[in-house]
Amino acid sequence: MIERKLALLSDRFNTLWYENGIVKILDRRVYPHKQEYVTCESLEDIAVAIEEMIIQGAPPIAYAAGFGLVLEIEANANKPYDELKVIIRNGAKRLRNTRPTGWDLFYMMDRCIELTDELIHQDANVAQGLLEYVNKQIEDGNWIARETGREASELLESGDRILTICFAGAALIYMLYFAAESGKEIELFAPETRPYLQGARLTAQSAKDMGIQVTIVTDGMPGYLMSRGMVTKFVSTADKITWDGHIVNKVGTYQIALAAHDNDIPYYVLGYNGPAPDAQNIDSVVIEERDPDEVLYCMGVRTAVEGVRGYYPAFDITPPRLVSAIVTDRGIFPPNLVYRYFINPKKERGR
Amino acid sequence: MIERKLALLSDRFNTLWYENGIVKILDRRVYPHKQEYVTCESLEDIAVAIEEMIIQGAPPIAYAAGFGLVLEIEANANKPYDELKVIIRNGAKRLRNTRPTGWDLFYMMDRCIELTDELIHQDANVAQGLLEYVNKQIEDGNWIARETGREASELLESGDRILTICFAGAALIYMLYFAAESGKEIELFAPETRPYLQGARLTAQSAKDMGIQVTIVTDGMPGYLMSRGMVTKFVSTADKITWDGHIVNKVGTYQIALAAHDNDIPYYVLGYNGPAPDAQNIDSVVIEERDPDEVLYCMGVRTAVEGVRGYYPAFDITPPRLVSAIVTDRGIFPPNLVYRYFINPKKERGR
Repeated sequence: MIERKLALLSDRFNTLWYENGIVKILDRRVYPHKQEYVTCESLEDIAVAIEEMIIQGAPPIAYAAGFGLVLEIEANANKPYDELKVIIRNGAKRLRNTRPTGWDLFYMMDRCIELTDELIHQDANVAQGLLEYVNKQIEDGNWIARETGREASELLESGDRILTICFAGAALIYMLYFAAESGKEIELFAPETRPYLQGARLTAQSAKDMGIQVTIVTDGMPGYLMSRGMVTKFVSTADKITWDGHIVNKVGTYQIALAAHDNDIPYYVLGYNGPAPDAQNIDSVVIEERDPDEVLYCMGVRTAVEGVRGYYPAFDITPPRLVSAIVTDRGIFPPNLVYRYFINPKKERGR
Repeated sequence: MIERKLALLSDRFNTLWYENGIVKILDRRVYPHKQEYVTCESLEDIAVAIEEMIIQGAPPIAYAAGFGLVLEIEANANKPYDELKVIIRNGAKRLRNTRPTGWDLFYMMDRCIELTDELIHQDANVAQGLLEYVNKQIEDGNWIARETGREASELLESGDRILTICFAGAALIYMLYFAAESGKEIELFAPETRPYLQGARLTAQSAKDMGIQVTIVTDGMPGYLMSRGMVTKFVSTADKITWDGHIVNKVGTYQIALAAHDNDIPYYVLGYNGPAPDAQNIDSVVIEERDPDEVLYCMGVRTAVEGVRGYYPAFDITPPRLVSAIVTDRGIFPPNLVYRYFINPKKERGR
């Protein structure tokens, strides 16, 4: 009998869902300072929510975009099939343009277009079919996160002091949860992760919810902690993994991976559903650059002097030589062999 | 004829001075958002100003502390000599306890005690003698900063894109100034430097004042910039340099030095007056830990969730293997030979 309560962000259905023609999305820009849900009534609402980082993380962005197509189809329910095919393609284009780095979003758009064509061919209810598909994807994603977290928890030992970055998603929550449930004494260090402070908010709250001690540091401090023996493992997620094991993740990851390597500290990546099928190597990966103004403010307060420029690359690239292992729902891979994810058998659900 | 105007922080007398029984200190916590001067009327006022980081940087802290002793002697001008000797020692003890890492403060306190004893022995005006000494130290410090900056400017080439961290003090200003004056086209990247944002404020304002383009990034971004060829040199100062070339500087420096090394980018340290005489190796160095709450806020706004801990080491340690050269007023040294500073001849003033 499990007594420990899983943190809110462990289940994606707690953070976004469709009901009666609208989509509710937890506003991650303010959670947990405030627990507010944004109501999206149209595809455009969803697109803006993704752009404004109301929702974050490669899989959740994809799920929200899927719901966006559902809303778009519903709004055009009476249109002839030919028009519907154009509408779904235009909608997918709009959503693809929101954030360029993650693969999940592009996959979701491709699959939804295919599915729409199939449903039309079958003369079935397109909106209903799409909604079922997206909900199934979220369910599968939850299971992938759970399995990834379970695998990762087995890499942890009692006494581990784990440093992470940004918010590594539901798999991080499950990793902490399973480790703690199996009696391992662990604690967490969370760099605040500027400019959006996901570490100081989402990661910190998730650990706190589960009674795991968490200490916030600034983004410049992980190297010092490591050099002083205060950290035993570094764990991040990845917004994109290439077939040859490059880790594209929240900007700042590379510096911490260097420090981990310099101090012989393992770096594990929570890789969820493995490498991106469209990323055989790093050359094809587009690093999103966001509004430079975002680095000149913190929580809406101007931090930089007036009259200077900002620059905001959202991700950086950690080469495989700095990565100890990539943890997925299908097992744990050395970074250079992570492409084997594609040929590893899928685990049975409900293990 | 030099037309370019030096930034305000190039001259320490612009930021702290004694006049008629009080000491004025530029409040670096808010500059340049506001240009406010704190008035200190007693040694205790000065001690608190140092603790609260109204003044920052190893040499300026030492100068302010010297003024603190001047105020203390003035307040006790009519006391017998024996009492005065005790008072100066107690005052120095209070000031030494403000911030433990820099060497300059300890040296200033030792010298002021010696000088007080001498002045008493000579039956001279103690307060006046101390004041002249501290002012002379500031004058010398300005010259050291200028010479260090001049030496460093010779390491720069046209087209350099220099990344720094925190505020590397007056020598950084002079380095940029001399490089620009000699026609080199340079630009600067400044990590904001949490939690106090010295990069986004002091460094950014200083570059801007001199017409040098500056771009603000978060503390997690330097590694990415370097990996993408956007940075050609890394330049920091040091709060303390050991005889064997370890660099104790603003926490975050070590991570950036690792990234510079990983990308074959030179890392130069603005070393001012060289290694600390009391730091033969790193073992004796105390890394100051500040109030953990400071990392849970940004400009007074709570950033972290409630109920979590913070941790705030003020400095980190970069080993000599990651340092290309240490620049001082007496020339440029490889890190492992920086102890030669002590045997290098002092340059003539007015070069």
